[in-house]
Amino acid sequence: MKVFPNQSVEAKNADEGASKLKVRWLITKEMGAPNFAMRLFEMEPKGYSPLHSHPWEHEVYILEGEGSVVSEEGDKKFRTGDVVFVLPNEKHQFKNTGAKTLKFLCLVPI
Amino acid sequence: MKVFPNQSVEAKNADEGASKLKVRWLITKEMGAPNFAMRLFEMEPKGYSPLHSHPWEHEVYILEGEGSVVSEEGDKKFRTGDVVFVLPNEKHQFKNTGAKTLKFLCLVPI
Repeated sequence: MKVFPNQSVEAKNADEGASKLKVRWLITKEMGAPNFAMRLFEMEPKGYSPLHSHPWEHEVYILEGEGSVVSEEGDKKFRTGDVVFVLPNEKHQFKNTGAKTLKFLCLVPI
Repeated sequence: MKVFPNQSVEAKNADEGASKLKVRWLITKEMGAPNFAMRLFEMEPKGYSPLHSHPWEHEVYILEGEGSVVSEEGDKKFRTGDVVFVLPNEKHQFKNTGAKTLKFLCLVPI
Protein backbone atom coordinates (compact mmCIF):
# COMPACT_ATOMS: atom_id res chain seq x y z
CA MET A 1 0.00 0.00 0.00
CA LYS A 2 1.18 3.51 -0.78
CA VAL A 3 -0.01 6.76 0.85
CA PHE A 4 1.51 10.04 -0.36
CA PRO A 5 0.64 13.69 -1.03
CA ASN A 6 -0.13 14.48 -4.67
CA GLN A 7 2.49 17.27 -4.56
CA SER A 8 5.23 14.67 -3.99
CA VAL A 9 4.82 13.63 -7.63
CA GLU A 10 6.51 15.89 -10.16
CA ALA A 11 4.29 18.10 -12.33
CA LYS A 12 5.40 17.71 -15.95
CA ASN A 13 4.36 19.66 -19.03
CA ALA A 14 1.45 17.96 -20.76
CA ASP A 15 1.50 16.67 -24.33
CA GLU A 16 1.87 18.67 -27.50
CA GLY A 17 -1.33 20.49 -28.42
CA ALA A 18 -1.94 21.59 -24.82
CA SER A 19 -1.32 25.05 -23.35
CA LYS A 20 -0.61 26.04 -19.73
CA LEU A 21 -1.20 22.46 -18.63
CA LYS A 22 0.81 20.29 -16.25
CA VAL A 23 0.24 16.68 -15.23
CA ARG A 24 1.21 14.58 -12.22
CA TRP A 25 1.04 10.82 -12.85
CA LEU A 26 -0.14 9.77 -9.38
CA ILE A 27 -0.79 6.04 -9.87
CA THR A 28 0.83 4.20 -12.77
CA LYS A 29 1.53 0.80 -14.27
CA GLU A 30 5.13 1.13 -12.99
CA MET A 31 3.78 1.38 -9.41
CA GLY A 32 1.90 -1.88 -9.95
CA ALA A 33 -1.49 -0.64 -11.08
CA PRO A 34 -2.93 -3.49 -13.17
CA ASN A 35 -5.84 -1.76 -14.91
CA PHE A 36 -5.94 2.04 -14.87
CA ALA A 37 -3.84 5.12 -14.10
CA MET A 38 -4.65 8.23 -12.01
CA ARG A 39 -3.38 11.60 -13.24
CA LEU A 40 -3.83 15.07 -11.71
CA PHE A 41 -3.96 17.95 -14.18
CA GLU A 42 -3.32 21.59 -13.31
CA MET A 43 -4.38 24.11 -15.95
CA GLU A 44 -3.72 27.83 -15.70
CA PRO A 45 -6.37 30.39 -16.73
CA LYS A 46 -6.89 30.34 -20.52
CA GLY A 47 -5.10 26.98 -20.72
CA TYR A 48 -6.48 24.04 -22.68
CA SER A 49 -5.88 20.39 -23.51
CA PRO A 50 -5.60 19.13 -27.12
CA LEU A 51 -8.81 18.82 -29.15
CA HIS A 52 -8.69 15.14 -30.00
CA SER A 53 -10.24 11.70 -29.69
CA HIS A 54 -8.79 8.27 -28.92
CA PRO A 55 -10.11 4.76 -28.40
CA TRP A 56 -10.03 4.94 -24.58
CA GLU A 57 -12.26 6.65 -22.04
CA HIS A 58 -11.60 9.49 -19.55
CA GLU A 59 -13.06 9.46 -16.05
CA VAL A 60 -12.67 13.00 -14.72
CA TYR A 61 -13.40 14.65 -11.36
CA ILE A 62 -13.10 18.45 -11.01
CA LEU A 63 -11.15 19.23 -7.82
CA GLU A 64 -10.92 23.02 -8.08
CA GLY A 65 -11.90 25.74 -10.51
CA GLU A 66 -14.20 26.00 -13.46
CA GLY A 67 -14.06 25.42 -17.16
CA SER A 68 -15.70 23.86 -20.16
CA VAL A 69 -15.27 20.80 -22.28
CA VAL A 70 -15.72 20.86 -26.04
CA SER A 71 -17.88 17.92 -27.11
CA GLU A 72 -19.65 16.74 -30.21
CA GLU A 73 -22.85 18.17 -28.65
CA GLY A 74 -21.29 21.62 -28.07
CA ASP A 75 -19.44 23.11 -25.12
CA LYS A 76 -20.41 21.90 -21.66
CA LYS A 77 -19.53 23.89 -18.52
CA PHE A 78 -18.21 22.34 -15.33
CA ARG A 79 -17.05 23.45 -11.88
CA THR A 80 -15.66 22.08 -8.62
CA GLY A 81 -17.28 18.79 -7.64
CA ASP A 82 -18.49 17.93 -11.13
CA VAL A 83 -17.86 14.65 -12.91
CA VAL A 84 -17.00 14.38 -16.62
CA PHE A 85 -17.22 11.03 -18.39
CA VAL A 86 -15.76 10.90 -21.90
CA LEU A 87 -16.57 7.73 -23.82
CA PRO A 88 -13.98 6.01 -26.02
CA ASN A 89 -13.64 7.78 -29.41
CA GLU A 90 -15.53 10.91 -28.30
CA LYS A 91 -13.90 14.17 -29.39
CA HIS A 92 -13.05 16.37 -26.38
CA GLN A 93 -11.02 19.35 -25.21
CA PHE A 94 -10.83 20.78 -21.69
CA LYS A 95 -10.51 24.57 -21.18
CA ASN A 96 -9.98 26.69 -18.11
CA THR A 97 -12.53 29.53 -18.40
CA GLY A 98 -12.05 30.75 -14.83
CA ALA A 99 -9.62 33.12 -13.09
CA LYS A 100 -7.90 30.45 -10.97
CA THR A 101 -5.93 27.30 -11.66
CA LEU A 102 -8.22 24.46 -12.72
CA LYS A 103 -7.36 21.14 -11.08
CA PHE A 104 -8.88 17.83 -12.07
CA LEU A 105 -8.25 14.12 -11.86
CA CYS A 106 -8.35 12.23 -15.14
CA LEU A 107 -8.15 8.43 -15.07
CA VAL A 108 -7.38 6.31 -18.09
CA PRO A 109 -7.06 2.58 -18.72
CA ILE A 110 -3.56 1.11 -18.90
CA MET B 1 -20.10 12.68 -22.94
CA LYS B 2 -21.69 13.29 -19.57
CA VAL B 3 -21.08 16.26 -17.23
CA PHE B 4 -22.91 16.33 -13.89
CA PRO B 5 -22.48 17.37 -10.24
CA ASN B 6 -21.52 14.52 -7.91
CA GLN B 7 -24.48 15.44 -5.68
CA SER B 8 -26.89 14.52 -8.50
CA VAL B 9 -26.04 10.86 -7.84
CA GLU B 10 -27.81 9.29 -4.86
CA ALA B 11 -25.71 8.57 -1.74
CA LYS B 12 -26.46 5.00 -0.63
CA ASN B 13 -25.44 3.19 2.53
CA ALA B 14 -22.19 1.30 1.98
CA ASP B 15 -21.77 -2.45 2.36
CA GLU B 16 -22.13 -4.51 5.50
CA GLY B 17 -19.13 -4.16 7.78
CA ALA B 18 -18.98 -0.39 7.28
CA SER B 19 -20.16 2.30 9.71
CA LYS B 20 -21.31 5.87 8.97
CA LEU B 21 -20.35 5.45 5.34
CA LYS B 22 -22.24 6.41 2.21
CA VAL B 23 -21.28 5.91 -1.42
CA ARG B 24 -22.23 7.61 -4.69
CA TRP B 25 -21.49 5.49 -7.78
CA LEU B 26 -20.49 8.35 -10.13
CA ILE B 27 -19.33 6.43 -13.22
CA THR B 28 -20.44 2.84 -13.77
CA LYS B 29 -20.54 -0.01 -16.24
CA GLU B 30 -24.24 0.79 -16.78
CA MET B 31 -23.25 4.30 -17.99
CA GLY B 32 -20.93 2.71 -20.53
CA ALA B 33 -17.62 2.64 -18.64
CA PRO B 34 -15.66 -0.24 -20.19
CA ASN B 35 -12.85 -0.69 -17.63
CA PHE B 36 -13.29 0.95 -14.23
CA ALA B 37 -15.83 2.64 -11.98
CA MET B 38 -15.62 5.92 -10.02
CA ARG B 39 -17.19 6.06 -6.55
CA LEU B 40 -17.35 8.94 -4.06
CA PHE B 41 -17.40 7.93 -0.39
CA GLU B 42 -18.58 10.15 2.47
CA MET B 43 -17.63 8.96 5.94
CA GLU B 44 -18.81 10.66 9.13
CA PRO B 45 -16.44 11.14 12.09
CA LYS B 46 -15.62 7.78 13.73
CA GLY B 47 -16.90 5.97 10.64
CA TYR B 48 -15.01 3.16 8.95
CA SER B 49 -15.03 0.82 5.97
CA PRO B 50 -14.84 -2.99 6.37
CA LEU B 51 -11.47 -4.52 7.23
CA HIS B 52 -11.03 -6.83 4.26
CA SER B 53 -9.07 -7.79 1.19
CA HIS B 54 -10.11 -8.71 -2.35
CA PRO B 55 -8.37 -9.53 -5.61
CA TRP B 56 -8.81 -6.03 -7.10
CA GLU B 57 -7.03 -2.74 -6.48
CA HIS B 58 -8.27 0.59 -5.06
CA GLU B 59 -7.12 3.92 -6.45
CA VAL B 60 -8.08 6.55 -3.87
CA TYR B 61 -7.87 10.35 -3.77
CA ILE B 62 -8.69 12.20 -0.54
CA LEU B 63 -10.98 15.14 -1.36
CA GLU B 64 -11.70 16.45 2.15
CA GLY B 65 -10.89 15.55 5.73
CA GLU B 66 -8.38 13.29 7.41
CA GLY B 67 -8.15 9.70 8.48
CA SER B 68 -6.06 6.58 8.48
CA VAL B 69 -5.92 3.33 6.60
CA VAL B 70 -5.17 0.04 8.30
CA SER B 71 -2.57 -1.86 6.31
CA GLU B 72 -0.39 -4.91 6.73
CA GLU B 73 2.45 -2.49 7.62
CA GLY B 74 0.41 -0.73 10.33
CA ASP B 75 -1.88 2.31 10.24
CA LYS B 76 -1.04 5.04 7.75
CA LYS B 77 -2.42 8.57 8.13
CA PHE B 78 -3.79 10.64 5.26
CA ARG B 79 -5.37 14.02 4.67
CA THR B 80 -6.84 16.22 1.93
CA GLY B 81 -4.90 15.93 -1.32
CA ASP B 82 -3.30 12.60 -0.49
CA VAL B 83 -3.34 9.55 -2.73
CA VAL B 84 -3.85 5.97 -1.46
CA PHE B 85 -3.04 3.03 -3.70
CA VAL B 86 -4.16 -0.38 -2.42
CA LEU B 87 -2.79 -3.32 -4.39
CA PRO B 88 -4.93 -6.38 -5.21
CA ASN B 89 -5.21 -8.73 -2.19
CA GLU B 90 -3.84 -6.18 0.32
CA LYS B 91 -5.80 -6.01 3.58
CA HIS B 92 -7.20 -2.50 4.19
CA GLN B 93 -9.69 -0.47 6.21
CA PHE B 94 -10.35 3.27 5.97
CA LYS B 95 -11.21 5.26 9.11
CA ASN B 96 -12.26 8.86 9.67
CA THR B 97 -10.10 10.09 12.56
CA GLY B 98 -11.04 13.76 12.09
CA ALA B 99 -13.88 15.98 13.28
CA LYS B 100 -15.41 16.55 9.82
CA THR B 101 -16.89 14.36 7.10
CA LEU B 102 -14.16 12.53 5.20
CA LYS B 103 -14.72 12.51 1.43
CA PHE B 104 -12.69 10.44 -0.98
CA LEU B 105 -12.85 9.01 -4.46
CA CYS B 106 -12.21 5.27 -4.76
CA LEU B 107 -11.92 3.73 -8.21
CA VAL B 108 -12.14 0.01 -8.90
CA PRO B 109 -11.91 -2.15 -12.02
CA ILE B 110 -15.17 -3.39 -13.54
